[in-house]
Amino acid sequence: MLKVIAQDFIKPEHIEDVMPLYRELVKKTKEEPLCVSYDLHINQKDPGHFVFIEEWPDRAALDAHCDTEHFKRLVPQIDQYQRSPGTFLLMDVFQ
Amino acid sequence: MLKVIAQDFIKPEHIEDVMPLYRELVKKTKEEPLCVSYDLHINQKDPGHFVFIEEWPDRAALDAHCDTEHFKRLVPQIDQYQRSPGTFLLMDVFQ
Repeated sequence: MLKVIAQDFIKPEHIEDVMPLYRELVKKTKEEPLCVSYDLHINQKDPGHFVFIEEWPDRAALDAHCDTEHFKRLVPQIDQYQRSPGTFLLMDVFQ
Repeated sequence: MLKVIAQDFIKPEHIEDVMPLYRELVKKTKEEPLCVSYDLHINQKDPGHFVFIEEWPDRAALDAHCDTEHFKRLVPQIDQYQRSPGTFLLMDVFQ
């Protein structure tokens, strides 16, 4: 199982612009057949800091997610409002 | 619901020392009555980078966790092997 933390940093004046884009991205991604979980969070100390916690069966499933119509359409729209580059972290579950 | 990401950065030569400490911390924490979820992960690119993803009903439950016998005993033992200070992030679930 692959766990992912993906973090976005959005300009304060554009938080309202990204909300419907994130809403659609979460909804469509949860409908992907290989998606185990895909949940979005907001830093309690920074309303422009958005944090995805994702779970995929393997790297191929994550790659397939990044190649979906909704990902390729919505992520560039979100990214235009970034104040700094996003980060992502791929993790194995501790045994 | 409160979600937490807590990250530890352990010296490479001490990874084997922290493994049993983390194992006990995870086991005991999952037994806490207020713990919703508490899962540990390892960065695929850095075996000394440990990442907890935690879920608590509220801040009081997290504070109670930090006041347990196992937390106060095990975390200082883990921390002596850190290569840099740990970080934590408190988050609300995106609606």
